[in-house]
Amino acid sequence: MKVCLLQSNPILGNLTQNFNWLKTQIKKQDADLFIAPEMALLGYPADDLISDNFFIEKQQVLLEKFKSVLKKNQMLIIGGVALNKNERSNSAFLISKNNLIRQDKINLPNYGVFDEKRYFEKGKKIEVFSFNNKKILVLICEDFWDKKIEKFYKDKKIDLCVVINASPFEIDKFSKRQARAIELTKKIKSPLIYLNMIGGQDDLVFDGESFILNKENELILKLNPFRTEVKTIDINKINLTIAHKNNIEEELILNACILGTQDYLRKNKINSVYIGLSGGVDSALVAYIASKAIPKDKINCIMMRSKFTSKISCEDARKLAKNLGIRYKNKNIMPIINTINESLALDFKNKHPDVTEENIQARSRGLILMALANKDKAVVLSTSNKSECAVGYSTLYGDMVGAYAPLKDISKTKIYKIVNYINQKNKIIPQRIISRPPTAELRENQKDQDTLPDYAILDRIIELFIDEGLNCQEIIKYGFKPQLVKKIVRLILGSEFKRRQSPPGPKISRKAFGRERRFPITNNYLG
Amino acid sequence: MKVCLLQSNPILGNLTQNFNWLKTQIKKQDADLFIAPEMALLGYPADDLISDNFFIEKQQVLLEKFKSVLKKNQMLIIGGVALNKNERSNSAFLISKNNLIRQDKINLPNYGVFDEKRYFEKGKKIEVFSFNNKKILVLICEDFWDKKIEKFYKDKKIDLCVVINASPFEIDKFSKRQARAIELTKKIKSPLIYLNMIGGQDDLVFDGESFILNKENELILKLNPFRTEVKTIDINKINLTIAHKNNIEEELILNACILGTQDYLRKNKINSVYIGLSGGVDSALVAYIASKAIPKDKINCIMMRSKFTSKISCEDARKLAKNLGIRYKNKNIMPIINTINESLALDFKNKHPDVTEENIQARSRGLILMALANKDKAVVLSTSNKSECAVGYSTLYGDMVGAYAPLKDISKTKIYKIVNYINQKNKIIPQRIISRPPTAELRENQKDQDTLPDYAILDRIIELFIDEGLNCQEIIKYGFKPQLVKKIVRLILGSEFKRRQSPPGPKISRKAFGRERRFPITNNYLG
Repeated sequence: MKVCLLQSNPILGNLTQNFNWLKTQIKKQDADLFIAPEMALLGYPADDLISDNFFIEKQQVLLEKFKSVLKKNQMLIIGGVALNKNERSNSAFLISKNNLIRQDKINLPNYGVFDEKRYFEKGKKIEVFSFNNKKILVLICEDFWDKKIEKFYKDKKIDLCVVINASPFEIDKFSKRQARAIELTKKIKSPLIYLNMIGGQDDLVFDGESFILNKENELILKLNPFRTEVKTIDINKINLTIAHKNNIEEELILNACILGTQDYLRKNKINSVYIGLSGGVDSALVAYIASKAIPKDKINCIMMRSKFTSKISCEDARKLAKNLGIRYKNKNIMPIINTINESLALDFKNKHPDVTEENIQARSRGLILMALANKDKAVVLSTSNKSECAVGYSTLYGDMVGAYAPLKDISKTKIYKIVNYINQKNKIIPQRIISRPPTAELRENQKDQDTLPDYAILDRIIELFIDEGLNCQEIIKYGFKPQLVKKIVRLILGSEFKRRQSPPGPKISRKAFGRERRFPITNNYLG
Repeated sequence: MKVCLLQSNPILGNLTQNFNWLKTQIKKQDADLFIAPEMALLGYPADDLISDNFFIEKQQVLLEKFKSVLKKNQMLIIGGVALNKNERSNSAFLISKNNLIRQDKINLPNYGVFDEKRYFEKGKKIEVFSFNNKKILVLICEDFWDKKIEKFYKDKKIDLCVVINASPFEIDKFSKRQARAIELTKKIKSPLIYLNMIGGQDDLVFDGESFILNKENELILKLNPFRTEVKTIDINKINLTIAHKNNIEEELILNACILGTQDYLRKNKINSVYIGLSGGVDSALVAYIASKAIPKDKINCIMMRSKFTSKISCEDARKLAKNLGIRYKNKNIMPIINTINESLALDFKNKHPDVTEENIQARSRGLILMALANKDKAVVLSTSNKSECAVGYSTLYGDMVGAYAPLKDISKTKIYKIVNYINQKNKIIPQRIISRPPTAELRENQKDQDTLPDYAILDRIIELFIDEGLNCQEIIKYGFKPQLVKKIVRLILGSEFKRRQSPPGPKISRKAFGRERRFPITNNYLG
């Protein structure tokens, strides 16, 4: 049996384009069975768009249309929404020339980034389907993980298990999927095809990494992460196991950010970007990501220097842009800052300088960046990272401006790992950007570590509190000073109002701010 | 039986303060049965804080503590979270001196603003409890509405039905609750007490409006909306029906905004606010709301005039502030705008003026407002309304800045109704603010209706698309021009990126942006 894996990148809501792409591939490939991802026509997650019956009905018409695309003895397994009166299910459709049947998803994830119980009714049972004299089991994403529903199929003869997914990327996800697939094939004694979509969608990025295990539990195929791929193989013939090579974490994260950025821009029909370079490591990495995501002549880097900007920041920013081959401008923002300060002089009379003046600088930069982007019908890429997002070490409407924040879910510690990884192959990021102590340069000789602990400590506390869900007392047991832990936790809880007004960025970690971690702004609990 | 209704305003997360307030009231009142709202110790909705077992365990300790607060033969019915291993339920606790039993909520709302299936396991059945020889039925919020679960109690003898709620305000909600209560008391033939919390919590505001029906379905008590109230009555003795007087819609909406604003500030420990006055009706209403929410000397109004600001805007803004008795400043922002334009002159050479220059003005105002607020440890109140929020007729990081947007869910048409309502009693808002055509004054002789249809038409299309969930074709059937409908719908769908970075404001309408309407930014579907 020849199977064609369609590791596609749907555009959310663009039913026609998603349909046409799949149709073209199906016509091109010589295969018996085609497999497309969960929600392959709609995109995922479509959120409240799911409740638009008109939209779902259009999808149903297109699902029916696949019948005429398929030849005799061909079948397409594809995910979509089934609509009955006003009830919906998340379903796999098994489409052949004369037939369309479906398997409904039983387990509707409603935790983390998922809200499926908001939209769908749960399926009742798992069936085993016949196709060209083969017995096929079809599982949709969450159902693949649930051992309780194995009762529906574990005693049945199965020739092939197909799992269709819209499974968002997060660190270490592939090894977890593979482990579960091995566990399952041991029980059902059949090959297993795990098919996942790719692509960026607001706060999520789908990694693909579709794979096939043979019935001996060996990995015989693995598609590339973060790439659209169409691959046809004869699962009965090919039985060569491939070397089990997990991708390097830094490379996976980098590619997640590149695809997330690329898709945000492409799918929202945005051609060019503006990035505020500071001479620091965050903006350097964002510029690098942009240079891999869109054509270089569509990237505009602006260094907006104030009197606190050091010479080396300007030198390094210029050198970075030169190394990347992207446009670079250096603007002096002191005239703007001075005029604002003069305008406020009377209001601020007898008041000491404080964070206000730093915010004025950051917001002047935000304003200039937005003006340049507006004039050009471009958007700003935000350079915020997870560490500053967590503790609020950033200025709302200042350095937080932007349509998309590629590093939103990456800690400062990890950013250093990634830039070092990039420089291993090719010293494209000036070394001094990496080696100098991090600074916002919003006042004389400022360093991040004037107000924050070392990033290694800060990031570990953030990870224990956010990703692992521990409370202060539990974190203190790891050997951190109680006062420090309480301070950091207070900063995290007190910064929710800023995060609510921050741009989206791709989920990378086990628990991302935004769609995944949902916390009240008004909250007097202190962890 | 003397019953004490505790229409309380919990502070989310502040378990101790919420407990102490209830304890004080219970000790003061001479009653047999005390009734507190759903989630009365935690606040609602606590979102992912519910998953913090440490937090929930603290709440459980406090629930047990009520035992020692109560006298013999007294009982407290109060909502909270029950935690068993790692499973939680949304429960009503029936607490007496020697006992604590519970009723779990069966229907977990997971639509609209609610996400209860994310946190809770559903209850299995509804029981009828005995208290001082009376049979008491306890329902939690959503269970009150569900006819399917009536089977658990409809054939049983019931002396009193108690419904505890954390039911957010929306227009017309009270009459719906009352209609259902009448339907239910007819079946169970017992008095019914509907007890709801009050208070603002980020995007929601709870209206209270707790009430009692006697077993003849007559309204014998109704507590005030949006006010903390403690009321003890003997439900067997008092049987006077009260005149069925529904509050005026404009007054209810106004009070929702006032309490929402007041609670956002108080619960986040913010003392003072800055408001950008424009001489228009939105900022006038926000200033009025602030003047009712916090002390007048904590309100700072700033008119930031540019060369496009008319004289009458300044006059009216000044007069408004004077009428309200709040601080007013007029700042000329032209020096800032001029400096920014000079700084960008070279970049914008040979490029035509467009919306960029308007955004620069709006963002200069945002920057000044934020600077003044930062220096004063205050926050900015945003003056955005639902009409502009819908179609994106506002500048991100400009007039959209703020910690809280009191008018976020109120259409322009409704804003006019509300200011007219205010002026009926007392002409506090200068009439010219209401009667002149709306304008953003970002260019010469600009009027909102240069780019938008009349607000009556715009708001109706928005209402049909958002609140009623119709699609373009269906809206066109109401007699609107197809091109206009498509343009408005496109503007709505294309403004999601702005809304995602907007401050919270209280839900007023049937479908509010933000917590309630959850839509993807990246979305190629055009309704």
